[in-house]
Amino acid sequence: MAERSEDPRKDAMEELKNFGRDILKNIKDKEPPRMKIPSRSTSNIVYDEDKRFYSLAGKKTTRTAANMRQVKKFAQTLCAADFCKDLIEAGKSATLREMYYTSEGWPTGGFSSQDRSDRVVEDIESAFELKREDLGLLPEEDGASIFGDLIVREGDMEVEATEAGRAGYTIPPTMSDVEFVECGAERVLAVETMGMYHRLVQEEAWDTYNSLIVALKGQPARATRRFLKRANNDLGLPVYLFTDGDPFGFHIAMVVISGSAKLAYINHELAVPDAKFIGVTASDIEEYKLPTDPLRDSDIKRLKQLLDDPRYSDEEWQKEIEKMLKIKKKAEQQAFSKYGLEYVVEEYLPTKLGLN
Amino acid sequence: MAERSEDPRKDAMEELKNFGRDILKNIKDKEPPRMKIPSRSTSNIVYDEDKRFYSLAGKKTTRTAANMRQVKKFAQTLCAADFCKDLIEAGKSATLREMYYTSEGWPTGGFSSQDRSDRVVEDIESAFELKREDLGLLPEEDGASIFGDLIVREGDMEVEATEAGRAGYTIPPTMSDVEFVECGAERVLAVETMGMYHRLVQEEAWDTYNSLIVALKGQPARATRRFLKRANNDLGLPVYLFTDGDPFGFHIAMVVISGSAKLAYINHELAVPDAKFIGVTASDIEEYKLPTDPLRDSDIKRLKQLLDDPRYSDEEWQKEIEKMLKIKKKAEQQAFSKYGLEYVVEEYLPTKLGLN
Repeated sequence: MAERSEDPRKDAMEELKNFGRDILKNIKDKEPPRMKIPSRSTSNIVYDEDKRFYSLAGKKTTRTAANMRQVKKFAQTLCAADFCKDLIEAGKSATLREMYYTSEGWPTGGFSSQDRSDRVVEDIESAFELKREDLGLLPEEDGASIFGDLIVREGDMEVEATEAGRAGYTIPPTMSDVEFVECGAERVLAVETMGMYHRLVQEEAWDTYNSLIVALKGQPARATRRFLKRANNDLGLPVYLFTDGDPFGFHIAMVVISGSAKLAYINHELAVPDAKFIGVTASDIEEYKLPTDPLRDSDIKRLKQLLDDPRYSDEEWQKEIEKMLKIKKKAEQQAFSKYGLEYVVEEYLPTKLGLN
Repeated sequence: MAERSEDPRKDAMEELKNFGRDILKNIKDKEPPRMKIPSRSTSNIVYDEDKRFYSLAGKKTTRTAANMRQVKKFAQTLCAADFCKDLIEAGKSATLREMYYTSEGWPTGGFSSQDRSDRVVEDIESAFELKREDLGLLPEEDGASIFGDLIVREGDMEVEATEAGRAGYTIPPTMSDVEFVECGAERVLAVETMGMYHRLVQEEAWDTYNSLIVALKGQPARATRRFLKRANNDLGLPVYLFTDGDPFGFHIAMVVISGSAKLAYINHELAVPDAKFIGVTASDIEEYKLPTDPLRDSDIKRLKQLLDDPRYSDEEWQKEIEKMLKIKKKAEQQAFSKYGLEYVVEEYLPTKLGLN
C-alpha cells in the first residue's frame, strides 16, 4: 500500500498505477500476472472489539491469469481498473450501472449481470484499500440533507448549508470531493426521516441547539456515513442519532455506529463508534406515554437477533431491547407530536442532548 | 369557492374560514351542520379528453353531523380544518404523520389508522379545491433535484440552482412557498434517475442545452410535479421527459403528463399535458442497438393495460407499446453508456430535443 496523501483521488491513481506496474513486472519476469484480494466471505469478517466495528481478518485469495477459470475475471478486473483510471484522469465519475453497460465495449466482453461487475469493484476497493468514490464510481443513492452552520466547497462552488433552500444542502454521492471550509455548529443531530428533519429546520432547532441537522432518509447512504465520519473526525463534532423506536431504527443507528458486515472492508472509513443513539427507546415509550404500534412477529424475531449481535452487546442496548420485547410495542419519532408539533424540539431533544 | 389570489396559503385560509362560517350558520339556522364532498370513487373519475388529464365528475356526497354514523368523522374533519388553520396562521407545516399523531389530543379522539386521517385531508382538499401543501401539510417525500440557470426565493432565502452543490437545489415539499425569481433556461429536461442527473450535470448538459436538469427520482413526488407544472405555466418552458424504456418508465412520464387517477381532484394543479416524452422508446432500443433485458410477464401484462388506457391513446404511444411487445425487450436510460459516458449527452439527447 502506498503512503496516503490528503487527496483520496490522487492516492487512488497511485494505487492503480502500482497495480499496473506489478502486472507488467509479472509479465517481464515471465510469471503469470496475479493479484491478492482480501476474502470478503463471512468467515473472514470479524467484529473488532477495539475498533468497535466489523472489519476483515487476514485471509486473502489470489486471482491469476494462469488459471483458466479466473483469466476472464482477471482481465475484467484490469479493464475495470483502467476504466477507473480514465475517470480519475478526466475528473469524472460514473455510476456502477454505467460501468456495467460500458463493459460491453471492453476487449474482455461485458459481465453477465451487474452483480458481477459490482463485485469486481469491491475486489479493487478491498485489494487496494480504496473507496469506490475515490475511484470515480458513484453510488446511485442520494446523500443526506443537511441544514446548519456549515460551509463546504465542491470544486469552485462554495455552499452554505443554511442558504441552499429549506430542503437543505444535499450531500453529493462523492463525499471525497467535498471540502469543509467553515463550521460553527457544535454537534451533529442526525434523524431518520425527512419529516423530522423538516420539523427541526422549521422550529430552528439547528440554531437553538447549534447543530447540523442531518436527514438520514432511512438507512443512510455511503456518502451520508462518510459525511458523519468526517464531521466526527475532521470537525471534531459529537454525533447524535435520533431514529424510530423499532428494530429498523436501531439498525439504522447501528450501521452508522459500527458499520455493516457487508462493508467490512471499508468500515474504517465509514463507522462512527462514538456516535450516540438518543432514542426512541423502549424507556422513552413508557416515560413519554407515546402512541405505539404492537410489535410484529418479524420485529420480535429481529430484536432477538440483535440481543446476540456483538454490536449491541453493551448494557444500555441490552436493557432497551429486552424492555421492548417485554412491552411488545414500538413507536415512531414523529409520535411526540401527540403533545404538539414543538414538543420534540422543546422537551425531548434538549433532555436527551443534556441541554436542559 | 372564493376568488383565488396569488397567495395559495391566503386562499386556503379564506376557504377554511368560510367553511367555519357555513357551519356556524347551519347551527344558528337550527339546521344540522353539513358539508359537500366530491366523490373520489372510481365511478366519479373521468379522463377529460379536452383537458387531457383525469378529473372528477360532478357527483358529491354530503357529510353531516345529523347522521350518527358520520358525526365523529364530521367532527374530525372540523378538527383537521382547525389544525390546518393553526398551521397557516403560525406559518408552519406538518407531515400527515404528525397530524395523525396530533389527532390523539383532539376532543373527537384520534383516528384508528393514518389511512383514515389522510382521507380526511383529501376530503378537505377536494371539497375546497385546495392542495394539502397550501393547508400547511407536507408530503414525506423529497422533491426533485434541480441544476441549471434558475434562481428561486424561499422566504428570505434566495437560491441559485447552480450554486447549491452538485447534488443540486432540492425542491422543498411545499412548492407553494417557492417563488421563481429569475430563469435563463429555455427548457426543462426531467430524467428518471439520479444516475442520469449526475451524468448531465457532469457533462454540463444544463449549460450546453440551456436546460434545467430535473431528477424525478422514480415516480415523481407531488412537489416535483407541481414544479414542472409551474415551470411550464409560469415560466413558459417546454418540459421533456427522459425515462427508462420500460412500462414503469412510461408510467412515470405519463403521471407527469396526465396525472394519476388517484389524484384526479387535484390534477389541474399538477398535470403537464404538453410535456413531451423523449424516450427510451422501443424504436430507440432498435435504432441504437441498446443493451436490453427481456420483458417479464408482469411487464407484458402492464404494457397490454397501457394499450387500453385513454392516456396512451395517441398514435405514437400505441406504436411504441406495440413494438415493445413485439421485440419483448426493455432498456434503461443508462444503457447508452455502451457507447461511452458522453454519448447520451452528445448524440441521443440533442437528436431527441431537435438540437442537431
